Amino acid sequence: MLKTALPCIDWLQGYSRQTFMSDLMAAIIVTIMLIPQSLAYALLAGLPAEMGLYASILPLVAYALFGTSRTLSVGPVAVVSLMTATSVGAVAQHGTADYATAAVMLALLSGVMLIGLGLLRFGFVTNFLSHPVVSGFITASGIIIALSQLRHILGIDAHGEAVPALLSSLGHHVADTNLYTLGVGLFTLGLLLFCRSKLGTLLTRAGVSRQVAGLITRAAPVLAIVLTITAAIIWDLESRGVALVGHVPSGLPVFSTPLLDWALIETLAMPAFLISLIGFVESVSVGKTLGAKRRQRISPNQELIGLGAANVASAVSGGFPVTGGFSRSVVNFDAGAETQAASLLTALGIGVAALVLTPALYFLPKATLAATIIIAVTSLIDWHIVKEAWRFSRADFTAVAATIGLTLLFGVEIGVVSGVAASIGMHLYKTSRPHFAIVGTVPGTEHYRNVLRHDVVTYPTILSLRIDESLYFANASYLEDVIYGQLAAHEEVEHVILMCPAVNEIDLSALEALEEINRRLLELDIKLHLSEVKGPVMDALQRSHFLEHLGGAVHLSHHSAIAGLVGSR
Amino acid sequence: MLKTALPCIDWLQGYSRQTFMSDLMAAIIVTIMLIPQSLAYALLAGLPAEMGLYASILPLVAYALFGTSRTLSVGPVAVVSLMTATSVGAVAQHGTADYATAAVMLALLSGVMLIGLGLLRFGFVTNFLSHPVVSGFITASGIIIALSQLRHILGIDAHGEAVPALLSSLGHHVADTNLYTLGVGLFTLGLLLFCRSKLGTLLTRAGVSRQVAGLITRAAPVLAIVLTITAAIIWDLESRGVALVGHVPSGLPVFSTPLLDWALIETLAMPAFLISLIGFVESVSVGKTLGAKRRQRISPNQELIGLGAANVASAVSGGFPVTGGFSRSVVNFDAGAETQAASLLTALGIGVAALVLTPALYFLPKATLAATIIIAVTSLIDWHIVKEAWRFSRADFTAVAATIGLTLLFGVEIGVVSGVAASIGMHLYKTSRPHFAIVGTVPGTEHYRNVLRHDVVTYPTILSLRIDESLYFANASYLEDVIYGQLAAHEEVEHVILMCPAVNEIDLSALEALEEINRRLLELDIKLHLSEVKGPVMDALQRSHFLEHLGGAVHLSHHSAIAGLVGSR
Repeated sequence: MLKTALPCIDWLQGYSRQTFMSDLMAAIIVTIMLIPQSLAYALLAGLPAEMGLYASILPLVAYALFGTSRTLSVGPVAVVSLMTATSVGAVAQHGTADYATAAVMLALLSGVMLIGLGLLRFGFVTNFLSHPVVSGFITASGIIIALSQLRHILGIDAHGEAVPALLSSLGHHVADTNLYTLGVGLFTLGLLLFCRSKLGTLLTRAGVSRQVAGLITRAAPVLAIVLTITAAIIWDLESRGVALVGHVPSGLPVFSTPLLDWALIETLAMPAFLISLIGFVESVSVGKTLGAKRRQRISPNQELIGLGAANVASAVSGGFPVTGGFSRSVVNFDAGAETQAASLLTALGIGVAALVLTPALYFLPKATLAATIIIAVTSLIDWHIVKEAWRFSRADFTAVAATIGLTLLFGVEIGVVSGVAASIGMHLYKTSRPHFAIVGTVPGTEHYRNVLRHDVVTYPTILSLRIDESLYFANASYLEDVIYGQLAAHEEVEHVILMCPAVNEIDLSALEALEEINRRLLELDIKLHLSEVKGPVMDALQRSHFLEHLGGAVHLSHHSAIAGLVGSR
Repeated sequence: MLKTALPCIDWLQGYSRQTFMSDLMAAIIVTIMLIPQSLAYALLAGLPAEMGLYASILPLVAYALFGTSRTLSVGPVAVVSLMTATSVGAVAQHGTADYATAAVMLALLSGVMLIGLGLLRFGFVTNFLSHPVVSGFITASGIIIALSQLRHILGIDAHGEAVPALLSSLGHHVADTNLYTLGVGLFTLGLLLFCRSKLGTLLTRAGVSRQVAGLITRAAPVLAIVLTITAAIIWDLESRGVALVGHVPSGLPVFSTPLLDWALIETLAMPAFLISLIGFVESVSVGKTLGAKRRQRISPNQELIGLGAANVASAVSGGFPVTGGFSRSVVNFDAGAETQAASLLTALGIGVAALVLTPALYFLPKATLAATIIIAVTSLIDWHIVKEAWRFSRADFTAVAATIGLTLLFGVEIGVVSGVAASIGMHLYKTSRPHFAIVGTVPGTEHYRNVLRHDVVTYPTILSLRIDESLYFANASYLEDVIYGQLAAHEEVEHVILMCPAVNEIDLSALEALEEINRRLLELDIKLHLSEVKGPVMDALQRSHFLEHLGGAVHLSHHSAIAGLVGSR
């Protein structure tokens, strides 16, 4: 019981010195990676740099206690930071105290919602976000994020939550480009690209071990930060118009209870729900992937509680919404992290950074951070799913294309809502016009097959119809249309047999449609039969009055139905 | 082609004198019924009485030209009038010119949307409104309508769009009750109840033919109007505080183009969509029921166009949203209407009424109209569906109960949206955790049945799993959970065979889940097979790379899969 509520007990038992050494190594690498990321994602969310650091301390501790993945690295991530910027930007002016307050409130709401969903065991709601929709959404978000960071690289003032506004705003201000800022930005982009694509190979060729080479490569953003801070100090870039991070208060976050402003809560409720959903889906898919490699299972409902606790922890310590990040978790895993102790040590590392490094951050150019964001999100952009969906099915392609298109055009909130609506809508549309077949006996067997595809025996007085779908409200009226249409085409029919091996469910709307069909067939002196009805469906039918009024009978097999009706003539 | 666009051509050909006499008889009866209804539903919608008459002339003509039901009676109906009051009340002050303008705009928007859906052949969207949800919604609307009319019976000022507000408002003002108004209201209620329950029997017993008795009974609201108008004149009820309909401009509606106010259009778009949906679903179900009795088919997509044309006609002639009404259509049908000529004649009748009767309407007490509304909507209230849903399935009951409860508590818009969401949500929830069974061979046969229900043969190295549902995004991750869970329980397994006779579809999310399962099973040295895959599903799989990487094979029948795997050992 306690182990379910506090999954950390599981790995704390029998924690060894060797495990500690593995976790410590991973923690050092992740800390080096997380310092620039936490600052950059705070910038992306439109928040002061220290909030990025705050969001990377307590949330990690909370997830380590309540989460079920051993290697997930929680903290600020790109897509959730972009969604934070969008939803907070709608209620408060960028850069004001209200803006920061709203971001904290967003984390709190998201945390409370996640915990609530977890306690209600509502993990299944995330199933309604289909894979292609999530992939499409993340790709589109990556594009928006990259575009939104261009302004820091150019040193101009350009805003917008979707591609058209961003492009027009960038076009409008591009003439104001600050060349020193652009220089810092391009230098960082070049450095990061070089480190990512070439450095590893060069180092291993030079005899450096693969692990050390990987560590050095991942430290590239830190290198960029050190170099550009140095440049900013030496050449006094601030006086040349390069935007710097500026004063970052030194020290650890102070606990505080977010103010309960009901109007704000009402406005942020929907965005918080979307952030929770997207954050959870992203995080769980990372957790599952990593867990599978070491045969560790994660529990979706407990994950909701773990991520919810992380967001509440972020809110009470002045942070913003967090979730499990893909790239950082993979690094954590590859660096050998075995338990969430690695996250606890990472939190310690960020805490130390918040205490001692902040004075140096004054001189950090924002263009450096923007460049690290752009490089990071290029890995999010993935057109593979679009091609795959195109090849696979029109429905999936429609859902992906709608998600990407609407996200790019109208921003993340409309994009993700439309994506979910498109997925569900396409599913309902498909099942609302189910495949059906008139079937006949394969000669000499007891098998029944589609008359259009096989050479089968039929009888003019018997219409055998196989419906390849559960019967429910979305296709109830289509069922009536199909049967009446077929009757019009087969005038001698005296018996209609619905063959139901693929009917997994009949709901009340479909039951009413069946009753109506039965009633109308009786008026026409035609008997309605069912065959091969599944157990659970039969149970449901027996709870209604349908069987009492049924003109024909329910037959165990379609063959016995045909044999009985043909024999009885 | 022309016949499809103008279904009236069908009945105009070969129209006979005898048909005309039947249609005329029906038109007289429906006109007598429609005069009080049109006034009453205008009152319910919060609009001046003449708008009710206007909504009962041109819309009937438009539907007669473009609609496909021969006997549907279009015009103002209770639920749509309530929805009009709710949505217009949200944008304009009751009784102002803006209020009437907004109602006209609502009819225009609804008309354009219906025509648009019809041209796009989107009739299927109404399938997403399940029967139980629509019934529940109409029951709850009936209760709200009856409560909302109590204020006219009591002669007090009480408003509200849902039950809590209505009750508290009624309670607040009940002390102001005008006893003369109450007298008129109770007299009308009593008269109508008497006519409905007793008069028919008394008349037929007295030797009056059943048809004439029915006609007299249906004229009861007109009788009530005549009597209360007389009373209002004789006893000068206006000076005693009884609210009268007051001045109704005499004459026919004047054509006008509604002003295109974009802000108004934006606000009313969602309500107009909901009104279109509910109005269409109600109307089509009436049309289908009546059509079936005479073996006439109606075409849902053309019905959209017919009802859309009726609403546009209502808008350009100063009316408000209309649709096909249940009780009036049944009367029209029973009175012998054979074609939409009956509606054309009814429109003529209402036109004459608008020309000559309006002076008399000045003295009509609002309480009389309110009483006719209350009696009319009692027939909408139907708890049968709740009981049936309770018995039939928890999912249907949840959807109905949510619809009724939320409509009563929060009004029609939230009610209908929640109802649709609940239906879809319950369907997704059910299919997100599909039934599955481990199956084994029934000895001596080629049949495979659930090991829990039957005495069957299984092999320790083969796991045969039958999934009873299409595989799609909502259950993709559940599938993974099921398979990994079963593998943990069956450690000797070398082959997993998914038996797919009930899998009607596999979407891209499910395909990705299957690829992931296959990959993970290969790591464990287990082979994944599929059996009894349906044609369309197989076609989809062949468009992907799944089959190339599949560890096992796809088998035509489950038996051949087992035979091959057992034989090959």
